[in-house]
Amino acid sequence: MTQTDTLLSLFTETRGYTEKLCKPLEIEDYVVQPIMDVSPPKWHLGHTTWFYEEFILKHFKKDYKLFHKDFAFVFNSYYESVGKRVVRSDRGNMSRPGVAKVYDYRHYVTNEIKELLTSKISKEVEELLLMGIHHEKQHQELLTTDIKYILGNNPLLPKYSTDFSENKITTIDQEWISIAEGIYQIGHSDKNTFHYDNEVNRHKVYLQKYSISNTLVTNEEYLEFINDGGYKDFNFWHADAWEWLSESNITRPMYWHTIDGEWYQYTLQGLQKLDPEAPLSHISYYEAFAFAQWKGCRLPTEFEWEAAQANFKWGNRWEWTESAYLPYPGYTKAPGAIGEYNGKFMVNQKVLRGGSVATAPKHTRHTYRNFFQPELRWQFTGVRLAK
Amino acid sequence: MTQTDTLLSLFTETRGYTEKLCKPLEIEDYVVQPIMDVSPPKWHLGHTTWFYEEFILKHFKKDYKLFHKDFAFVFNSYYESVGKRVVRSDRGNMSRPGVAKVYDYRHYVTNEIKELLTSKISKEVEELLLMGIHHEKQHQELLTTDIKYILGNNPLLPKYSTDFSENKITTIDQEWISIAEGIYQIGHSDKNTFHYDNEVNRHKVYLQKYSISNTLVTNEEYLEFINDGGYKDFNFWHADAWEWLSESNITRPMYWHTIDGEWYQYTLQGLQKLDPEAPLSHISYYEAFAFAQWKGCRLPTEFEWEAAQANFKWGNRWEWTESAYLPYPGYTKAPGAIGEYNGKFMVNQKVLRGGSVATAPKHTRHTYRNFFQPELRWQFTGVRLAK
Amino acid sequence: MTQTDTLLSLFTETRGYTEKLCKPLEIEDYVVQPIMDVSPPKWHLGHTTWFYEEFILKHFKKDYKLFHKDFAFVFNSYYESVGKRVVRSDRGNMSRPGVAKVYDYRHYVTNEIKELLTSKISKEVEELLLMGIHHEKQHQELLTTDIKYILGNNPLLPKYSTDFSENKITTIDQEWISIAEGIYQIGHSDKNTFHYDNEVNRHKVYLQKYSISNTLVTNEEYLEFINDGGYKDFNFWHADAWEWLSESNITRPMYWHTIDGEWYQYTLQGLQKLDPEAPLSHISYYEAFAFAQWKGCRLPTEFEWEAAQANFKWGNRWEWTESAYLPYPGYTKAPGAIGEYNGKFMVNQKVLRGGSVATAPKHTRHTYRNFFQPELRWQFTGVRLAK
Amino acid sequence: MTQTDTLLSLFTETRGYTEKLCKPLEIEDYVVQPIMDVSPPKWHLGHTTWFYEEFILKHFKKDYKLFHKDFAFVFNSYYESVGKRVVRSDRGNMSRPGVAKVYDYRHYVTNEIKELLTSKISKEVEELLLMGIHHEKQHQELLTTDIKYILGNNPLLPKYSTDFSENKITTIDQEWISIAEGIYQIGHSDKNTFHYDNEVNRHKVYLQKYSISNTLVTNEEYLEFINDGGYKDFNFWHADAWEWLSESNITRPMYWHTIDGEWYQYTLQGLQKLDPEAPLSHISYYEAFAFAQWKGCRLPTEFEWEAAQANFKWGNRWEWTESAYLPYPGYTKAPGAIGEYNGKFMVNQKVLRGGSVATAPKHTRHTYRNFFQPELRWQFTGVRLAK
Repeated sequence: MTQTDTLLSLFTETRGYTEKLCKPLEIEDYVVQPIMDVSPPKWHLGHTTWFYEEFILKHFKKDYKLFHKDFAFVFNSYYESVGKRVVRSDRGNMSRPGVAKVYDYRHYVTNEIKELLTSKISKEVEELLLMGIHHEKQHQELLTTDIKYILGNNPLLPKYSTDFSENKITTIDQEWISIAEGIYQIGHSDKNTFHYDNEVNRHKVYLQKYSISNTLVTNEEYLEFINDGGYKDFNFWHADAWEWLSESNITRPMYWHTIDGEWYQYTLQGLQKLDPEAPLSHISYYEAFAFAQWKGCRLPTEFEWEAAQANFKWGNRWEWTESAYLPYPGYTKAPGAIGEYNGKFMVNQKVLRGGSVATAPKHTRHTYRNFFQPELRWQFTGVRLAK
Repeated sequence: MTQTDTLLSLFTETRGYTEKLCKPLEIEDYVVQPIMDVSPPKWHLGHTTWFYEEFILKHFKKDYKLFHKDFAFVFNSYYESVGKRVVRSDRGNMSRPGVAKVYDYRHYVTNEIKELLTSKISKEVEELLLMGIHHEKQHQELLTTDIKYILGNNPLLPKYSTDFSENKITTIDQEWISIAEGIYQIGHSDKNTFHYDNEVNRHKVYLQKYSISNTLVTNEEYLEFINDGGYKDFNFWHADAWEWLSESNITRPMYWHTIDGEWYQYTLQGLQKLDPEAPLSHISYYEAFAFAQWKGCRLPTEFEWEAAQANFKWGNRWEWTESAYLPYPGYTKAPGAIGEYNGKFMVNQKVLRGGSVATAPKHTRHTYRNFFQPELRWQFTGVRLAK
Repeated sequence: MTQTDTLLSLFTETRGYTEKLCKPLEIEDYVVQPIMDVSPPKWHLGHTTWFYEEFILKHFKKDYKLFHKDFAFVFNSYYESVGKRVVRSDRGNMSRPGVAKVYDYRHYVTNEIKELLTSKISKEVEELLLMGIHHEKQHQELLTTDIKYILGNNPLLPKYSTDFSENKITTIDQEWISIAEGIYQIGHSDKNTFHYDNEVNRHKVYLQKYSISNTLVTNEEYLEFINDGGYKDFNFWHADAWEWLSESNITRPMYWHTIDGEWYQYTLQGLQKLDPEAPLSHISYYEAFAFAQWKGCRLPTEFEWEAAQANFKWGNRWEWTESAYLPYPGYTKAPGAIGEYNGKFMVNQKVLRGGSVATAPKHTRHTYRNFFQPELRWQFTGVRLAK
Repeated sequence: MTQTDTLLSLFTETRGYTEKLCKPLEIEDYVVQPIMDVSPPKWHLGHTTWFYEEFILKHFKKDYKLFHKDFAFVFNSYYESVGKRVVRSDRGNMSRPGVAKVYDYRHYVTNEIKELLTSKISKEVEELLLMGIHHEKQHQELLTTDIKYILGNNPLLPKYSTDFSENKITTIDQEWISIAEGIYQIGHSDKNTFHYDNEVNRHKVYLQKYSISNTLVTNEEYLEFINDGGYKDFNFWHADAWEWLSESNITRPMYWHTIDGEWYQYTLQGLQKLDPEAPLSHISYYEAFAFAQWKGCRLPTEFEWEAAQANFKWGNRWEWTESAYLPYPGYTKAPGAIGEYNGKFMVNQKVLRGGSVATAPKHTRHTYRNFFQPELRWQFTGVRLAK
């Protein structure tokens, strides 16, 4: 296969996968935005499409005709460079364009990109397309967690799909992996494979001796923390976290319920008894940190995680690290709108490593850096301890 | 026709009219709640249905089986007496129950009520049913204005229906109607026709001599106010209004746009050139008051309005009055949940009189008292001057 | 005594009385503003002084030299007509001008006014001066209640003065005064005695037959309401009030404390055991209304109050009425800044009648209309029932 | 001198220095809290005193009698371990205890500590006392910047003292200091000298080759940034910063004014013409970062700063670094309340290095880590560039 064929195949597969994720939805599910962080599914469908239109078709396809003059306004997320946009909190207030129209938009743009790929494309377009595809893969993850939020916070607690199993249980015994003190190489190394600008430059980091767990913290372990009064003892919490707790009245992970004294968990398969052996999920960094404190351990830094990751299995839960999201040495952002992709978020966020059950196929790698504000819980976040 | 036949016919007609209003909607339009005051159309459909279920079927239909155990939670609006409910701001966050399910609910309850009417019903049930019907008629009005808000605040400004004409122009010349000083009877007089508890007791009010306009203020007159700097001169405004203006950056009625120096107005028929002769609409009490101040006039009280109303045409715009919404002498609220219908809102609101193009058929009368907070604008509110 | 002598004497007495009220304060007490509604005592001292400077001295005293060029900015309250001002919420953030400086300002302006009065003054100046004096008397009341708030919300609960007795007990038995249906004259009648523009025009009001209590509700009666679960039963409350209760966690009048199961009340004489026979105070309109509902009674309208007032004693508590604060027939506001005194507040407020232990000498009259938002409690507000 | 003599002398000097800083204040200046981050000077006086009482006298002085039973409630800052406290936002609402009383409290506790030092004290008490002294020194810095905020945000812009010169001009030319790639030791090394728990463990860090400026950014350089539209170009700003800018309308450093087209700066000596050669101050991390972006440089990490600091002069401005405030390897917090000193703030803050003109004598060292939220500006913050 030629390079273009590979790209076309990756593009087609990715476009299809997004739509497949939406199959179980009713039309109404595409529309709502119960909290600021969650976007309506139809917005994800439109936004990932707009990305190709805005950054590729408009500039590189001859005589390209916009699908609709107002869609840039409707589907731009946060790119200041490319003009005004619907404020984030309004995404769920827009009934139009409707779902059918958004699918029309998708198919129009998908076909236009395919047509573009029938001729030879420049290196620049190739890179932008690859970026667009990976951008869409990132949104596939958000789409899944946003759908979970929409259904899991509905009073009727509807199922998404019986096929989607969140909780892959490991039967491995917990062990501590020891890592020696010394210099480690961190960051993406192969310039020819896809990666974001925040994964380079690859650079040396000096690590002290440490141990890291080969397994993730389970629901059962976290229940012990709850039962031991973990949410009521300020000693385990950051000052900001303690304030957040008192304002939000949070006393358990997101999606946990008690019914007649029994613990339940809403999953994409519906409400289920809490599985004690399943890896903990839907906790904030604040809770991850407090749990680690209670346990007499700590969270690993992202460098410790990366240096050790070959020694354990990962990929079911995004794992909170102790690291703040900061640029690597020598980081420079790309010129233009693409430069807004990562750099401008490098403050007030924590790094997560690993990937989750919601991560798109071919989208994880050990240098991948995800990042969220420390109070957020709607991703499939988990905890791996270090000491 | 017997009394029961009349009721059945009124009920059937009302149920049908609500659904007719929703015909032009796409499924997505049923779901959203762009501001707190606006409810999603599917919520209106469900709530008006729940009202019959909660207050009639549950208590008076033998062996009545609830359509769904959670719908009381989902569709209760503000009745503290009948249990917990979804908080108002969450109505637009619920994709489920979906539109089809809500229609199923409607048809189920409609049929159950019809079945109930095949036997003789008590006076109590008759009154509750009449209340339910008029309750649904009130929601028809809200449904219309909520649909306008949903479509008219969408960046694509979609039409609702080309059949719905908002602006019925009067060709009558403006004149001042003089009303003599003296005692006037105010409030609903006929105990046998339907009315709300806030329209009685009928009582005497002493009015000073006054004049009231036979016509409503037009867009053209309001444009003069705008062009004369009316929104920038604090002298015309209440202190609360002046603060509201500075926080909201409001400089014109809702739905007014300027495009290339021309004035446009979003209507249910889509965006149109502003019609200078059409009656002004979508202004808050604050704006109505400021306009009157600027004009050297004032708003009538609700008593002045009622005493004079036989002398002019009304019914296209809800007309702001200077009166605060307060109980009439001898007002007592009904026992139980129905008592929550009106009484508990009798503070911090202003009275509107008349009815509007969105008011349901057979729903206006000259003693009807509508009421809203002074800053609200999404109803078809208008201004009639007095002096 | 000539008219000017009388004015001078009233002016001198009023200026002195304001300063006398501040005698028991420590310097620190002059500075703070614990809530938006409360102003720092030094601000009251300066603002009442600025009023004479701004509206009289600047315009009518030849070669008048401003005490300080920035004081208009610092001490203007809400007069849009006379320029920019410190935002209300910042009053307690300003340590300067210091207390000594503010007293210098007072003495300077007092002397300038006295000097002005050595010559003959015009009718206009005379009226403005009378307005200034009554304005200062209004602030004396606020000064007292603001001082109570400042000290009574301090964790050390310091006394203001042992001389200030809030609770004048009446030994009269409660009785219902019957008032006949008919036309009553309402509003200020004597054009030659001082009154505000909101007390006129004197006009006819038609009242239905009603009864009004000759006594105020006592602490003991209100305790029964509390003990009967009055704060927990939504049936007694307006919808807005119920929301206010749940947000504020209010369960008792302001300044009431329970210590070891006993009820205490902070008074200007310090913390004291709650006197069951003393008239209830420091409740919002919402609470007054709910109490009346629970009692099977209602609050009087301001017209009912005024028509009946000659039949009972009043003056210890400001009495909440059911009336919204609205203009009387024929109300017109004065031109210029003085026109901002009353008119612009005629929305979203309730009328209080009577006067309180904090009201300045010679400042009450039976046509006086005080007004506050329905949730406010820091005035010496009370309840008189009607039915 | 014995160790105890040294401690006594350090203690006495520190207590005296706090009071000396307050000398120029009027009583009113001690009371106010114009923003949450700023505490009233009398609160600093009381809080630094309470620290010795709570952690030393109560536990280690035989028969110690509390000065006042409620002062722990009033003067506790954020120690959850030692009971309830006045919420931070209420500090400026408390006129009592008055300034004289707070000085009485100071002298009482100062004397009690001195008396304690007449006998031999344990190692534990010695360490707590040293902690208390350094705690007070930290508050001396805050006291100075809080006083500046209180006076510098007053509309009268009063001077603090003509003796306090903020702007020590350097005549050194700007140069780039090159630092070689390699391993560097970071953190406090001498266990016997005072340091906070956040400065250890001393550990190895691998640094890439970098350059760091020998001078601080000046006002003149920052003016160029402003004049070049730096505040209006989103490209230089973090997403959070851009939002912060649009909400706060910030367009210049704190304390900068334009009068008739000229730039002025409020300093503790009063309003002065902006000195172009003085080191920039009172900018947030967000602004520091944006400036560096505009300049094509970046901020150093705290490790880069520490590794290079012997090569340049520092101490006039706290210097923002790119580093998030995080624990060093092996960090453990002390048991009990003292453990709340640093650890619980290790999230959502940025590290500052160096010290400022407000830093207390003997309080800076090159391993010292200060930390603030990225939007704060009231400290004497500055910028040193790296690349």
